[in-house]
Amino acid sequence: MCGIVGIVGKSNVNQALYDALTVLQHRGQDAAGIVTSDQGRLFLRKDNGLVRDVFHQRHMQRLIGQMGIGHVRYPTAGSSSSAEAQPFYVNSPYGITLAHNGNLTNVEQLSREIYESDLRHVNTTSDSEVLLNVFAHELAVRNKLQPTEEDVFAAVSQVHKRCRGGYAVVAMITGYGIVGFRDPNAIRPIVFGQRHTDEGVEYMIASESVALDVLGFTLIRDLAPGEAVYITEDGRLYTRQCAESSQYSPCIFEHVYLARPDSLMDGVSVYKARLRMGEKLADKIQRERPDHGIDVVIPIPDTSRTSALELANQLGVKFREGFVKNRYIGRTFIMPGQAARKKSVRQKLNAIDLEFRGKNVLLVDDSIVRGTTCKQIIQMAREAGAKKVFFCSAAPAVRYPNVYGIDMPSAHELIAHGRTTDEVAELIGADWLIYQDLDDLKDAVGGGKVKIEHFDCAVFDGEYVTGDVNEQYLDRIEQARNDAAKSTGQRVSAIIDLHNN
Amino acid sequence: MCGIVGIVGKSNVNQALYDALTVLQHRGQDAAGIVTSDQGRLFLRKDNGLVRDVFHQRHMQRLIGQMGIGHVRYPTAGSSSSAEAQPFYVNSPYGITLAHNGNLTNVEQLSREIYESDLRHVNTTSDSEVLLNVFAHELAVRNKLQPTEEDVFAAVSQVHKRCRGGYAVVAMITGYGIVGFRDPNAIRPIVFGQRHTDEGVEYMIASESVALDVLGFTLIRDLAPGEAVYITEDGRLYTRQCAESSQYSPCIFEHVYLARPDSLMDGVSVYKARLRMGEKLADKIQRERPDHGIDVVIPIPDTSRTSALELANQLGVKFREGFVKNRYIGRTFIMPGQAARKKSVRQKLNAIDLEFRGKNVLLVDDSIVRGTTCKQIIQMAREAGAKKVFFCSAAPAVRYPNVYGIDMPSAHELIAHGRTTDEVAELIGADWLIYQDLDDLKDAVGGGKVKIEHFDCAVFDGEYVTGDVNEQYLDRIEQARNDAAKSTGQRVSAIIDLHNN
Amino acid sequence: MCGIVGIVGKSNVNQALYDALTVLQHRGQDAAGIVTSDQGRLFLRKDNGLVRDVFHQRHMQRLIGQMGIGHVRYPTAGSSSSAEAQPFYVNSPYGITLAHNGNLTNVEQLSREIYESDLRHVNTTSDSEVLLNVFAHELAVRNKLQPTEEDVFAAVSQVHKRCRGGYAVVAMITGYGIVGFRDPNAIRPIVFGQRHTDEGVEYMIASESVALDVLGFTLIRDLAPGEAVYITEDGRLYTRQCAESSQYSPCIFEHVYLARPDSLMDGVSVYKARLRMGEKLADKIQRERPDHGIDVVIPIPDTSRTSALELANQLGVKFREGFVKNRYIGRTFIMPGQAARKKSVRQKLNAIDLEFRGKNVLLVDDSIVRGTTCKQIIQMAREAGAKKVFFCSAAPAVRYPNVYGIDMPSAHELIAHGRTTDEVAELIGADWLIYQDLDDLKDAVGGGKVKIEHFDCAVFDGEYVTGDVNEQYLDRIEQARNDAAKSTGQRVSAIIDLHNN
Amino acid sequence: MCGIVGIVGKSNVNQALYDALTVLQHRGQDAAGIVTSDQGRLFLRKDNGLVRDVFHQRHMQRLIGQMGIGHVRYPTAGSSSSAEAQPFYVNSPYGITLAHNGNLTNVEQLSREIYESDLRHVNTTSDSEVLLNVFAHELAVRNKLQPTEEDVFAAVSQVHKRCRGGYAVVAMITGYGIVGFRDPNAIRPIVFGQRHTDEGVEYMIASESVALDVLGFTLIRDLAPGEAVYITEDGRLYTRQCAESSQYSPCIFEHVYLARPDSLMDGVSVYKARLRMGEKLADKIQRERPDHGIDVVIPIPDTSRTSALELANQLGVKFREGFVKNRYIGRTFIMPGQAARKKSVRQKLNAIDLEFRGKNVLLVDDSIVRGTTCKQIIQMAREAGAKKVFFCSAAPAVRYPNVYGIDMPSAHELIAHGRTTDEVAELIGADWLIYQDLDDLKDAVGGGKVKIEHFDCAVFDGEYVTGDVNEQYLDRIEQARNDAAKSTGQRVSAIIDLHNN
Repeated sequence: MCGIVGIVGKSNVNQALYDALTVLQHRGQDAAGIVTSDQGRLFLRKDNGLVRDVFHQRHMQRLIGQMGIGHVRYPTAGSSSSAEAQPFYVNSPYGITLAHNGNLTNVEQLSREIYESDLRHVNTTSDSEVLLNVFAHELAVRNKLQPTEEDVFAAVSQVHKRCRGGYAVVAMITGYGIVGFRDPNAIRPIVFGQRHTDEGVEYMIASESVALDVLGFTLIRDLAPGEAVYITEDGRLYTRQCAESSQYSPCIFEHVYLARPDSLMDGVSVYKARLRMGEKLADKIQRERPDHGIDVVIPIPDTSRTSALELANQLGVKFREGFVKNRYIGRTFIMPGQAARKKSVRQKLNAIDLEFRGKNVLLVDDSIVRGTTCKQIIQMAREAGAKKVFFCSAAPAVRYPNVYGIDMPSAHELIAHGRTTDEVAELIGADWLIYQDLDDLKDAVGGGKVKIEHFDCAVFDGEYVTGDVNEQYLDRIEQARNDAAKSTGQRVSAIIDLHNN
Repeated sequence: MCGIVGIVGKSNVNQALYDALTVLQHRGQDAAGIVTSDQGRLFLRKDNGLVRDVFHQRHMQRLIGQMGIGHVRYPTAGSSSSAEAQPFYVNSPYGITLAHNGNLTNVEQLSREIYESDLRHVNTTSDSEVLLNVFAHELAVRNKLQPTEEDVFAAVSQVHKRCRGGYAVVAMITGYGIVGFRDPNAIRPIVFGQRHTDEGVEYMIASESVALDVLGFTLIRDLAPGEAVYITEDGRLYTRQCAESSQYSPCIFEHVYLARPDSLMDGVSVYKARLRMGEKLADKIQRERPDHGIDVVIPIPDTSRTSALELANQLGVKFREGFVKNRYIGRTFIMPGQAARKKSVRQKLNAIDLEFRGKNVLLVDDSIVRGTTCKQIIQMAREAGAKKVFFCSAAPAVRYPNVYGIDMPSAHELIAHGRTTDEVAELIGADWLIYQDLDDLKDAVGGGKVKIEHFDCAVFDGEYVTGDVNEQYLDRIEQARNDAAKSTGQRVSAIIDLHNN
Repeated sequence: MCGIVGIVGKSNVNQALYDALTVLQHRGQDAAGIVTSDQGRLFLRKDNGLVRDVFHQRHMQRLIGQMGIGHVRYPTAGSSSSAEAQPFYVNSPYGITLAHNGNLTNVEQLSREIYESDLRHVNTTSDSEVLLNVFAHELAVRNKLQPTEEDVFAAVSQVHKRCRGGYAVVAMITGYGIVGFRDPNAIRPIVFGQRHTDEGVEYMIASESVALDVLGFTLIRDLAPGEAVYITEDGRLYTRQCAESSQYSPCIFEHVYLARPDSLMDGVSVYKARLRMGEKLADKIQRERPDHGIDVVIPIPDTSRTSALELANQLGVKFREGFVKNRYIGRTFIMPGQAARKKSVRQKLNAIDLEFRGKNVLLVDDSIVRGTTCKQIIQMAREAGAKKVFFCSAAPAVRYPNVYGIDMPSAHELIAHGRTTDEVAELIGADWLIYQDLDDLKDAVGGGKVKIEHFDCAVFDGEYVTGDVNEQYLDRIEQARNDAAKSTGQRVSAIIDLHNN
Repeated sequence: MCGIVGIVGKSNVNQALYDALTVLQHRGQDAAGIVTSDQGRLFLRKDNGLVRDVFHQRHMQRLIGQMGIGHVRYPTAGSSSSAEAQPFYVNSPYGITLAHNGNLTNVEQLSREIYESDLRHVNTTSDSEVLLNVFAHELAVRNKLQPTEEDVFAAVSQVHKRCRGGYAVVAMITGYGIVGFRDPNAIRPIVFGQRHTDEGVEYMIASESVALDVLGFTLIRDLAPGEAVYITEDGRLYTRQCAESSQYSPCIFEHVYLARPDSLMDGVSVYKARLRMGEKLADKIQRERPDHGIDVVIPIPDTSRTSALELANQLGVKFREGFVKNRYIGRTFIMPGQAARKKSVRQKLNAIDLEFRGKNVLLVDDSIVRGTTCKQIIQMAREAGAKKVFFCSAAPAVRYPNVYGIDMPSAHELIAHGRTTDEVAELIGADWLIYQDLDDLKDAVGGGKVKIEHFDCAVFDGEYVTGDVNEQYLDRIEQARNDAAKSTGQRVSAIIDLHNN
């Protein structure tokens, strides 16, 4: 997952882009980048690191201009490289820069096509660079000295025809404007909004509504599946449906874990969705074990706090913050002649014994992926004196890989892959394991005031909405993952972005 | 406030010191330092920044040795300089390094004395450097080629005789051992513990017990008022009472705000103390306004969460996480030709409207100092649609400056200084303001299983336990503060530590 | 002036490119860059600074691949920006990187054309980026999936048709090979050579033959006017004449000052040419003042040493190193509240008094440009006790700006612009000033074993061989220069390269 | 060898210290440091690297104050550590900082003494830190609140009594003044001078007179053997003879190689001394081989240029700059899986073939130490076509280690150690090798207008003037050297200065 933002403003947008990226930082802490445009000239700064570490005063002073785009990155599953920061740039046509959240599933074919049809060189393994070149090519073939919104939307339409996967994109056409678009299934989120200033109206496109909120922009709405929004440098806004009708299938995992609770996503309050996840879990518990004997509900901070609190309320059981999260995480250094030590969960969480001692505790987490951390936490609860340790996952069992832009381990590393709930419970050492039912999750998210019929739930049910993901594809990315992992030792610094020093 | 740690181990202690400092990082994010000793040679690394930014692989590799001390710093009130990282070093006698949490109230006199009696030059405005030189002098005058525990304790006794204030100290005597000591009123916290390894017993001294916990050490106990603990390089541990009997008066603010909830401090669980603060507040509310009409209790994250939850439980009112904390804070850059913009609280907190809309909300914070943030938060709650906004402070009104090592504004900047509760309520815009009563706070902390009779509560009641703090002294530090603030512009980088490049 | 290099090798070429750039560092100390290609992927590192400061171990490890190009930069007159390091990159077609020494005189027109014809965005004011896009466009229009040498040479031919100015270029076509080419007047220098290794023949293209020498390559020859050399990734070498016949007019200033003495340039030993400059000067002195009364000949180190020594030999006068050059130059810092101090020549040169005291000294420099340094040196000679100070310039009076890639002040800053020799002598304070005659200089360079009929001598005689440089053009660049100088204060960091962080 | 400087001025001395260090940079390129004193507070900046790389604007702004000292370092033989930059600091008494050029031969004994007598901890292997502590101790025992010049000189006298070796020192006593002193044999050089400004007279102490020159100070004189100069902060200057009469024995190698030619050292012009070295060599050549058949004299740049030129003049043979020195030296990187390549002399020097082809060349260097470079250069001359290659060393055969502060290999690495001239000639491949005779060298330096009777010539004749250097001592430092070399791999970064981050 990544975070993207684009702003067409009335004065320098560097600080606003920077602030928006800090608000979106939870979507990616790996790298950050901003490019601005001023009088037809681009100014770029990107590097690995947190937003606050990547941008210094000297960089901000250079990032002049009234429009620009930004990106925070979390490396995507299937990509062997972690060295390419965004935005990316091509100089032809017009000078286009692009930032992207998501993943393309036909990137190899596209990569071949753009070389063969347009002799375009792609220098990284990033699907974002490929996507940029596809878009650039489609805009170039229209061959306009001055591209209009029609040209831009036509190019987006072609992108939708050629690209498969989940993607939310902002791209800046130097001297003309910023376009945002969303894949035809609306898998990845993207919203836009406006702000009135003395100089006129300013527009912002972003991954999550909270970025608009914090900067004083008003949410206009989410982009529809396959829709594009184009804002010209002088402030005209156009939207257009650029794809034939497709199944509206937003990624449900955004609500489970990725998004900030204070975001509205496809009209649904993430916070409220999480409250409802807690409710549903309480129902299930009472249904399955009316005399559950739970003394206290304890969340694994921070994400599951909302659903755990509501779960406790519904159960009528005490809610307690039994774990303290260490906000400052350090590294484990390898001293000459020493073996690497395993980083214990102890450095992230610490139990407050008195909330565990002699009690039946119900631990609540948003989801269980590999199960390793989970197992250690249960162990920690026992050491703190818990009588029984029950474990609750606000999401169903994660059994399949994600191919639309969320970094997930391959199937064989997922603890629930090919296992029953009881088997998982035993492996993690829980006295009782409660997974959310998938229907309950769907209902929690899509059954509120705003109804959503369909979601991308592939990690839970293995159904990939783009229709092109088969066994063979999954095998290939699993293989790529393994190869990448193996060669990381020597490769990690071998691939550098062309645009970085 | 600062965090200190010292370890005498059986193998390299660099990683353990580093880990301990990350656990103590909440006590100071301004600077960090570690010094280790190996075969009579010292290895030092210190710089401004977070622990994870100050120490890189190349530094850790140099920090060899089986004993060492570390420090994280938060700049202390009254010190005009923010440029001195600890530990400090003097080469005579023996080579002594020292790290300190607290503040001396007679630093000017001491500074003069050590120059006049011992010609010792002090290069910073840091009282820690003065304290180090006093200790070094007292050890030097005993003139032993090899100092014994008797010499070390005698020197500590002299330090107690000469120094006034609150202080918890770790000092390493190169080639001999590490000593920890605590001021005669036990104002600042310090604990020690041990860990059994295959090579033998390792000892650790730290500001808070949680540092012991997370690293697998067992807490032995807190140091008593005026007590010292000395651990020799080869692992013998001695303790000694080094001050005549004084009032045991730990700083109550540690429990309110400074310490981690999972610490035990002077035998009291900080977490439990905070639960009791919530209880007491609930009692007060019910006593004062039985029909308070509160719909929801909302904590200002993170510190007040514990007391707010218990308060809600006791009131029988819903508890909700209505504010989302932005964990990634950025800077506000000043562009050429632009005025500095005020950093809004908006960048730190965001309200989830649905928890406010049409409700009477009770916001809970740990304390109110300047009142500025508080006022903005109340405003934010109103904008989110709250009907009435009540505000609750888990601590009593802060009316007096702290002189024992907590960075507090001077009296005139404290919103409650010389004002009634109603006046403060009006200034911050609250419909009702509830301060904890001081007796309740004392009872919440000192009235549990472990009884504590007396506390340093000077910020609340203006009674300074060391007896040497008068109007004149307070005026002087207020003056110093103002002068420092004024000259910060040009001075900020003018004073550099002798030991830094 | 800049230095360029390209190598097609049989193993990693990073170290060889690095070494070559250090040998060419005298051609530019401002910025350095290397790009290599490995299996169709590019690896780039460039930044401001000396070669030894720009490339660290971590960069070198990434610069893998058996072919690559490199660049050292000295900012060119007429370019308002000093922030763009080379090589530059465009991704279409094929991924092309380019490094360039020289200057285009029709860059504005070209810049417009490539946008209009090909929608290619140019993000800097660098003519190198324009040249790259022209070349890329001409290669793209041939629309070959796999470009042959014919395509490459055809593109170069088109470049020659469209571009005016002096230029020597290396460009790498990812996956195919490296091409080097020289402008139709051969104004800027470029040579190529080969080296036999166990794995096969390796080829190198470079600005000066000395880079070949030091790396163990054998010089094949200089490129002819308008000629190109293309070396495929697998080691086939092709050359082709790509321009209609033009006047062979190498820049004579290379021999005066720019080139290293141990280079062969267009077949002429720079060292020998300088010896002959000394001879010619001696002739002129003896012709004009047979009883010159010179006691000692003293060079201004380092460039003029060769000609000064031969001059002394021919005059039969003692040669002495009366000036010691300070090899370590520091900066002058501006302290708050201080005015900037002028950097005195004293920090660069120091006189050895005993070689001056009571003597008639003849100082020899390679040329006189602004005259400022010159004046200070003469003053220094007088303070050291010289009776009379004569001054000799191995080059004729510099009266006109350079537009082919040498950084020269605009006409009005040239001390000899519109002034007679006597007027210049008076301004610089010399008792006698001897300029080389232009015919003598031409003869010194072109009259040895290898004959060269014609040179670019525009700085001396105002004749610009490309035929397109008129008053209007010169006025425009002078204006641009002045504007750039004025706005440098705020602009210096405002323009950043797209490819840099 | 190192360079030292101290200035007591009338306004900020940071820029002057910086400029002086660049002028002295030839004495050490390894590390640089400056400490200034302002109102009793010290400001320090030191790090590894060249002066221009160590000091940036932000450092200079902090280095305020009207007095200060500086240092450039070249690591000294016998010291296993290369990680300690100077100046060093002790806080007791007064706060003293010190910078030092030279080497103590009884450092181990002193180190023990200062610990035993004064409990002073020394944290590095640097003899400078020991020397500082000896001086500090001797000043401390006088126990004055305000030290007078008498106290300072008395302390220096004690230093002379206790320390053995060659040393030139500047030390700053915070709040009082700067003292410079020279060992009783005057082995290492040190001068002082003054400059008149509008605010009053400023004083400077430096390793070489050229630093005074370039900064506009007038040389007063060299310090006499054992003499000290003390300049108080308010500008009073005192000198005192602080040692009983000793043999005046300046290091003759300063004239051969270390010093800049434009320095006056002990009253002798280094430049003139080198001219005379050339004369003497010419005499010897004519004496030994009247029909030498030499066609051309070629210096190895830069040091030998002066003597080579005079040698050629005296022989009546042509002088030619046949070698071009590459001023920009790069590193050789080790790529993964590659063995380290030997750095060839080719990267430093390049031959101009036409000056060698078919000629009998006489190469002139200042001295021959290991002989490795020498051998490669002769080989290069042959490859350039030389008929015969004669080699001339302006210094006699180097046969013994230096123990007074010049970094020389141990005896067994010296090519002339235990070998005859003919044997050396054969090893380096010279057709004829001419060493300067020691008496000629002494006469060249000490036989001009200013007479010097005696020199430290230990590297040539093995006579160590301090009288305490015996076989056993030399064996010990050779052993230490070897051990250091062996453990460098893992140790190089293991020892860090206490004062560095």
